Parts: sequence; structure tokens; C-alpha cells
Amino acid sequence: MTVQTLSTIGELQAAADAARVAGKHIALVPTMGALHKGHISLIERARSMADVVVTSIFVNPAQFGPQEDFEKYPRDLVRDSAQAQAAGTDILFTPDVAVMYPRGFQTYIDNNRLATILEGLERPGHFRGVTTVVTKLFNIVRPHLAFFGQKDYQQALVIRQMVKDLHLEVKIVTVPTVRDPDGLAVSSRNAYLLAHERQAARVLNQSLLIGREMILGGERDARRIQSQLEAYIKKEPLARIEYVSISNPQTLQEVQKIEGKTLIALVVWIGKTRLIDNIIVRQS
Amino acid sequence: MTVQTLSTIGELQAAADAARVAGKHIALVPTMGALHKGHISLIERARSMADVVVTSIFVNPAQFGPQEDFEKYPRDLVRDSAQAQAAGTDILFTPDVAVMYPRGFQTYIDNNRLATILEGLERPGHFRGVTTVVTKLFNIVRPHLAFFGQKDYQQALVIRQMVKDLHLEVKIVTVPTVRDPDGLAVSSRNAYLLAHERQAARVLNQSLLIGREMILGGERDARRIQSQLEAYIKKEPLARIEYVSISNPQTLQEVQKIEGKTLIALVVWIGKTRLIDNIIVRQS
Repeated sequence: MTVQTLSTIGELQAAADAARVAGKHIALVPTMGALHKGHISLIERARSMADVVVTSIFVNPAQFGPQEDFEKYPRDLVRDSAQAQAAGTDILFTPDVAVMYPRGFQTYIDNNRLATILEGLERPGHFRGVTTVVTKLFNIVRPHLAFFGQKDYQQALVIRQMVKDLHLEVKIVTVPTVRDPDGLAVSSRNAYLLAHERQAARVLNQSLLIGREMILGGERDARRIQSQLEAYIKKEPLARIEYVSISNPQTLQEVQKIEGKTLIALVVWIGKTRLIDNIIVRQS
Repeated sequence: MTVQTLSTIGELQAAADAARVAGKHIALVPTMGALHKGHISLIERARSMADVVVTSIFVNPAQFGPQEDFEKYPRDLVRDSAQAQAAGTDILFTPDVAVMYPRGFQTYIDNNRLATILEGLERPGHFRGVTTVVTKLFNIVRPHLAFFGQKDYQQALVIRQMVKDLHLEVKIVTVPTVRDPDGLAVSSRNAYLLAHERQAARVLNQSLLIGREMILGGERDARRIQSQLEAYIKKEPLARIEYVSISNPQTLQEVQKIEGKTLIALVVWIGKTRLIDNIIVRQS
């Protein structure tokens, strides 16, 4: 079956309504395109759990800060379309900015707790852009399931909270981070990395693994783990730490003592590229 | 038929889902209780347009400022319930604050244009509270129709914009302001007025009628109309003007020259009571 490519809200609504009325289970995979193995794993997971898979490709200006990379964010709709179809997409939604944010658009969804720390602190307005566009997509498609990657752990958490607070009827599925053989989490922004930067970028995953080993080895002092990770990352001359956070995976509040499940989340710049990664470790 | 009184989200969702599946048309009338003739006209209108009428009674803390009258806002559930039933309510939803805003609630809907002027300027956060609770009710009930009074004109406009921006599947019906024989717009806050204040409160409607006469008589200078209205209201010693605004009814932008439809909206304090009223005048 060929993928159906739609670019207006009315078309998407009609297609989703028809599927719902026919009793089909609908999955939504919201993406910003530049599809990589991480997105493919989301689409494949959606394919395995639903009758109709809707993949959206929309580089959402509302989630980029004024100094960020909205303009240079990689776009390749022809390649994306082929990949999305190969992975099992039935409906590809590729709206223009003017379709999603017509003149006069002025309503936003805001989270005032989870979205104000970590990424929210470093990228003010970022999650407001994410939750707004995701709500719009949820309301247009009214999917039964929606898929997000664990690499953007905080994003998935903010969306889960929104679904709960606003009584949205959708089940959020978080899919494990996909990594390249060298351990680097796949990301559209990896395309910005030069060859020697790509080598340096391994420091993100490597430091997470050190953190995991420390916890599994019995270390209970979160500050000590954080210091070790920071020291490790600083040995890489191309790396600049934005944050290394050791927190409760439900509340994202920093912890002092390791207990139960722990989130280690970090942002490290490699040259001009901002990379994010995280791991959840359960104390054995 | 007796009204069905529900106080949990699960019960309301189940009742609304059952009605929807049975092919019934569902109307929602969101109120803060202290029902008066204005609310009754909303419920009666809903009754005439739908199969199932859901009336919610919830004094929504999120839409009150810290210095406002949340605590003293009139509450009388027994009387409200009888009135709502008599007017044609099928399902009465009366949640506690902890049901609508459980511990950890943190997601809000914000309008950053229409909600930032007039009432939004005087009552920061007010519309955020309104749009958030209305979105929650919309998502729980998923009504086909929802009813709002014209007295809160800006509120209805903000909600219409939200429905459009977020692709909510509900039709908003705005119902004309109901007035007492002396012209005072009915309002739950009228209960705060002492007898002599009640007399003084007629100045709101009277000044709106003066504005209308001026426009219908050919006056095209909005500043002149505004001055006249303000002068008229100031003759009433108990009245204190918060704003008198002459604007475009779609954008709420103040106008200089009267053209087409004009909104005259005002807020006047009578003693310690804040009263609101408005009128739309079409240039003849």
C-alpha cells in the first residue's frame, strides 16, 4: 500500500475520522523529519500496535528559541517519505507552518513545573512549543496511541503529565533510545557533527555508562557521581557541559542519595552542536 | 426525569461516552453556580438544541486572582441543583477542587493576545484559569455544543479562539445577556450589592445605551463617545470606572473611528463589587 501524504488539517481529520469510525486503532508518531533509526523504531513499534499509523513531519517553529537552529534544521521530505513508508506509515502528514500556525494563532499549552527545569531552564518556551503542537496533532488525529523516544525523556514526561491534566484520551508509549554501534544516541542533530566531533560525541554515552556502573557498584552519593561524570566529560577538549543532572525520573528533582530508579540526564555541546542523552538506572 | 448528579471525572466521562455512543447530541453549560436568569437562559437554550444537557457547577480557583473573591463567591448547591434541573439539565457535574486540580496538576492553556487586554490586563491569569478548566471539561464531556453568556464577551471570544487554534470539536454558542427590568445585567456578583448600590449599578447599562444612541445618531469619534460615557458614570458617586473600552468586536483592539460593528465594554466598581457589561452596536 502506498503512503497517503496529506498536508491540510481538514484532510487529516477526515482520514482519521474515517479510520476511527471503521473501528481501526490509530497510532500517531509526531516527528520533525530528518528521520533516523530512532524515528524508524517509533514507527515500527506503532505499526506493531495499531491498524493505522499516522506519521507527522513538521519542523515546529514554536519549539525553537530565537537563537536556535530552526532555519538550518535538516529537511529532506523525499527521503523521509520513503523511510516513513518503508517502516509502516499509512498516512504521512506534512503541513506548512501557515497551516499549523495561521495568522492570528495565539493559544498555547504550558506546563509550569516539569517544563521549567533542565531543558526548560536552558530552552525557555521549548516545551510550550512541543505541548502546543502535540495537542493540536492529538486533537486533529485523536489517536489511540502516540509514540515518543526516550532520548527526549523530559519531553515524554511533560506530555504524559499534559495528557493526565487535560484528560486527553491517548496512551503515550515511550520507546527506548536507539544508539549507533559506538553508543552515540541517534539524533537528527548528529548530522551537524564533523568527523572528529563525531568521535568526541561518544563522551555522552560513555559518561552515562560510567554513572550506571557507579550506581550498580553501590555508589549512593549523587554528587560524587555527578562530579565523576563531569570530570570524565571535561577530559574531552571538544566537549562543553551544559548540565549533568541526577534526578528522580518521575519529578526530575535532583537527588542527593541514590534510591530506587535514578535518571542521569545530560546535555553536552560538541563544537556548535547541542547533544542530549539520558539513562535510567535501577539500583540493584 | 431526575437530574443525575456526578462529582468524579470517571463518572462524567462514562455518562458522556454512553450518550455519545447512543448517538445523542451533547450540550455543555459550564457555570460557577449561584445560578441566575442568565445561566437559566443558557441551560434552556442548550435544552432546545441538544439531547443531553450537562451543566457543570465548579467555582474554579484558577480563574480568581489572589486578592479576588474566590472564598466569598456565593455557593448554594441545593438551590442550584433544583434550578438547573428545572431548566432542563440532565447531568449535573459538581466536582471538588481536588478532583479538578489534584496534587501535581501543572498544565495550563494560555492565550497570549485576546486574553492579554481588557479583563486580561486587569485580572492577570484570569483567562488562563478559564481556558484551562473549559478545556478540561471539553475533554471529559466531548460535547457537540457549549454555551457561554455574552455578558462575558471577551471570555467567549477567547474560548472561540482556543477552539479554533487547538482544533477542538465543539461548537460555541453565545447567548444574549439577560437583564433585570431596570437594565442591570444579571450576575452572581449582584448578590454583593446593598440596596442603594443596586440603584447605582444601573449606571452600567444606562451608559451603554447612551453609547448606542450616539453611534446610531451618527457619532463616529470613539474618543468622544468614551468621554461622554465616562462623564456620565462619574456623576454616580458610588461608581468607580475601571475601564470603558470602544473596540473591534473580533480583535478587541480599540478603535478611533466607528465603522461596522463596535463593542462597548466596561467595568465599573460599585462600592466593593466589580461589575462588567457590554453591548455590540452595528452602525446603521
